[in-house]
Amino acid sequence: MRIDFQTEPSRYRHWKLRVEGPVAELILDVDEAGGLFPGYELKLNSYDLGVDIELADAVQRLRFEHPEVGAVVLRSGKERVFCSGANIRMLAGASHDHKVNFCKFTNETRNAIEDAGASSGQRYLCAVNGTAAGGGYELALAAEHIVLTDDGASAVSLPEVPLLAVLPGTGGLTRVTDKRRVRRDLADAFCATEEGVRGQRAVAWRLVDEAVPNSRFEAVVRERAAALAAASDRPAAEGIALTPLARDFSEDAVTYSSLSVEIDRARRLATLTLKGPEAAAPESAEAAQAQGAGFWPLRLARELDDAVLHLRLNEAEIGVLVFRSAGDPARVAGYDGLLEADHWLLREVRGLWARVLKRIDMTARSLVALVEPGSCFAGTLAEVVFACDRAIMLAGRFEGDDRPPATLAPGPLNFGAYPMGNGLSRLATRFLGEPESLGRAEARAGEALEAETCEDLGLVTFVYDDLDWEDEIRIFLEERASFSPDALTGMEANLRCAGPETMETKIFGRLTAWQNWIFQRPNAVGEDGALRRYGSGRKPAFDPKRV
Amino acid sequence: MRIDFQTEPSRYRHWKLRVEGPVAELILDVDEAGGLFPGYELKLNSYDLGVDIELADAVQRLRFEHPEVGAVVLRSGKERVFCSGANIRMLAGASHDHKVNFCKFTNETRNAIEDAGASSGQRYLCAVNGTAAGGGYELALAAEHIVLTDDGASAVSLPEVPLLAVLPGTGGLTRVTDKRRVRRDLADAFCATEEGVRGQRAVAWRLVDEAVPNSRFEAVVRERAAALAAASDRPAAEGIALTPLARDFSEDAVTYSSLSVEIDRARRLATLTLKGPEAAAPESAEAAQAQGAGFWPLRLARELDDAVLHLRLNEAEIGVLVFRSAGDPARVAGYDGLLEADHWLLREVRGLWARVLKRIDMTARSLVALVEPGSCFAGTLAEVVFACDRAIMLAGRFEGDDRPPATLAPGPLNFGAYPMGNGLSRLATRFLGEPESLGRAEARAGEALEAETCEDLGLVTFVYDDLDWEDEIRIFLEERASFSPDALTGMEANLRCAGPETMETKIFGRLTAWQNWIFQRPNAVGEDGALRRYGSGRKPAFDPKRV
Repeated sequence: MRIDFQTEPSRYRHWKLRVEGPVAELILDVDEAGGLFPGYELKLNSYDLGVDIELADAVQRLRFEHPEVGAVVLRSGKERVFCSGANIRMLAGASHDHKVNFCKFTNETRNAIEDAGASSGQRYLCAVNGTAAGGGYELALAAEHIVLTDDGASAVSLPEVPLLAVLPGTGGLTRVTDKRRVRRDLADAFCATEEGVRGQRAVAWRLVDEAVPNSRFEAVVRERAAALAAASDRPAAEGIALTPLARDFSEDAVTYSSLSVEIDRARRLATLTLKGPEAAAPESAEAAQAQGAGFWPLRLARELDDAVLHLRLNEAEIGVLVFRSAGDPARVAGYDGLLEADHWLLREVRGLWARVLKRIDMTARSLVALVEPGSCFAGTLAEVVFACDRAIMLAGRFEGDDRPPATLAPGPLNFGAYPMGNGLSRLATRFLGEPESLGRAEARAGEALEAETCEDLGLVTFVYDDLDWEDEIRIFLEERASFSPDALTGMEANLRCAGPETMETKIFGRLTAWQNWIFQRPNAVGEDGALRRYGSGRKPAFDPKRV
Repeated sequence: MRIDFQTEPSRYRHWKLRVEGPVAELILDVDEAGGLFPGYELKLNSYDLGVDIELADAVQRLRFEHPEVGAVVLRSGKERVFCSGANIRMLAGASHDHKVNFCKFTNETRNAIEDAGASSGQRYLCAVNGTAAGGGYELALAAEHIVLTDDGASAVSLPEVPLLAVLPGTGGLTRVTDKRRVRRDLADAFCATEEGVRGQRAVAWRLVDEAVPNSRFEAVVRERAAALAAASDRPAAEGIALTPLARDFSEDAVTYSSLSVEIDRARRLATLTLKGPEAAAPESAEAAQAQGAGFWPLRLARELDDAVLHLRLNEAEIGVLVFRSAGDPARVAGYDGLLEADHWLLREVRGLWARVLKRIDMTARSLVALVEPGSCFAGTLAEVVFACDRAIMLAGRFEGDDRPPATLAPGPLNFGAYPMGNGLSRLATRFLGEPESLGRAEARAGEALEAETCEDLGLVTFVYDDLDWEDEIRIFLEERASFSPDALTGMEANLRCAGPETMETKIFGRLTAWQNWIFQRPNAVGEDGALRRYGSGRKPAFDPKRV
């Protein structure tokens, strides 16, 4: 079964999206029978990857299709339960790599919720009208304001440790201490309490922002949403529709309008070729908006995002992603010139690229860019090169190929528009040890630089000529395929995250790495482990050794 | 077999310590037959925990016994090899918890090397006179200056990923990107190259500071060491001898002069009772120095450090450390008053407490402090309370006990003298979300505060009276013992590290957590994994799935 990341509101089974002027409601009402895999029922508004794919789609759509929406209310469509978190039976039955990739995607979705407020003025409020347990409370934590109904029963909780022997790994531990800044000993007590914390104690412990009686709940939520919307800079503009992607799947390839993915299973690699624009950039933001979802940078970003997610979840044995490009770099630079403009849609397109690039950073596959004649790695597309573990560039031409030598063209957008999770641009992270090199690169922004210059500026890893090119690439790819996939994952997760840490990098580094460890430990996933025994009526049996 | 963390230079089997005026040499010359466990030989200056225990002892001793030493040269006593890292056969044969605790201790020792320079002006230089591979290069990375001999053969390398399917987990990945600020793509290439990097390329990639020909090597090392020593603020004072600890081990207890450890294996807990000073603080720094290693704060810190290490390595099934204290808090505060003084020995004692407290922070056991009548949690000892996951305090008196109610007395040293790995004081980390609470606590520094005040100030987690005390403590301890040890380890590793991340916290969080994950994966530790097959002549077999 291929997991598909594309959906649209008319096909949602678990969420309802309602828009009323500047306020939208995202209502979680999970269809118990709508699980992505057989073997579990999505009871009590619990979720699996399918539920989160719809949420991610809605969060994305709200930004492009509803520029007028300044506040989004996350709430439940069921009585007495907001959300009971990730479905345990699904987790218990899932393979290790599915569990890890499921958590990664749900983390990215919660980050996208926070990003909507921080980067685009679309701010989330969570109306906890019932129990928010585990992943349910972690979803609430992604909002910037949490209203809990104070009915003597509704509680927020992170019962993973006592109940399941795993962590609240969808950002829960990190957001409790670093976003909500709950005192560490109270956080410890909270995470050890299966039943969670209710009412005014939840407010006193900083777990929610307010706890209000049932009678006033709806009015308070409305009021807070209206206030968030009023403080937003979202424009009173017409949105654009995110129409379905043009895609074609075959055995060894996925073909999009501006991207092709070729899969070589024997060599465990996928080659992603980014195609430059078919025509010059539109003259204005308005002309870009008239192109809707067909606007080239938007179209390519959505296609690239879909391809990366497809490879992550459906092609677990592909170890290396090779990025190539084909097209006219001057045209790409032309689009970048337009993208810099101050216009709501262009801000959204830049924001989408920032998120897609972060998705690439967080992809546990080796990433390599090949910069060759005919490629168009300029500006935004050059950023893909800077996201890679290695960038290899041809000096001169291939024999029998009279195209001009390859160029790499950093542009203004490479110096801040697309921050990594650590808050720095990829070039600033690259040149942590030589800040003067960042200035040297910036001084050449807008120029199409040939291999020798790129090597001198430190923009690529290695430069080879035609004589060595094929051998060097082959050796690198074979070497990568021969290493332990786990060791590469750990190595890349460390080397890609130089410099400062943020809540986001802590979630993907510290928290996720610990969770992955626990997801391998018999105390959680063994026959007698808590995750496997949950709901069986039998207590888990633990190895008491502390590691 | 009990692993003992106490040693002294006359008993070293693997290191030689030479002091000549302001420069010391620490010479690694591993005794192949001197492994801590049977089953492996420590060839090529490879190390196990026993080798690192000697190094940690030397690093500590240099600070107390040699105030005159401003520079320490780390070097090898063997030809053509500096250090080939952690012994692979030892790692392949070790249990998961030993591997993890071994790595933690070696990381702490490397941090102690960096701390000697940063906090105490005793700066390390590494003279790489041969191959520095894996943990060998990671040891060099702890120094602030690395001189490599440029002989066409000597190289630095991190071959863990290609050779062993594990990470350079003793800080290697983090220090390469964050301390030496090697460009991420070059770091990737470096970590994928078994044979490492030599000579001028190692300098160009920022892996070492200089590569000098054999003929000039000794002269350059001498010159650099002299320059480091000349720039140091270490005093020309007489040191004090770190005499052997007075300890007594029995089946269920360890008794030190100022600390007792009682072990309750059935309940999986150890109770550490810190004993206050037997007499008032000496009148002056000079009088303190005259007491030598018997000076109470120094003695207690060394005992506490030894006890924590003993519990970590020798009592893996103990899940909870309960901290109590007994003594006169006014006397403790008196010692703190002296400790604040500007004197080389007192600086060292404060520095030792800072490291011991960090060791407690990084101990993968649940930590709880019980603040009761008769306890003396003031100043430096109160810091132990602030290091705990929970602090529980008695309000009023126990029935039939006429001692005055318990007090907790924060002092000036709790507000910066003992930074956590994140660079903040424990109280600043505690009050991340309420900086005004930090000010409120600081305003009461020096006062002995009773339970209600401590609760109000947020200095303790819960306050109980005599009626509830016993039940609440029992329930907490039983609950903790019933949870998965792994989930608790992961939870505590996250909740204790709120706020900023530093290279140090990244090493213990991101890097270590990934390494622990890999240490559980069949690709490394399974029958066909790389760690098990190393040296067998058979290639490892990997599951190709990327997670």
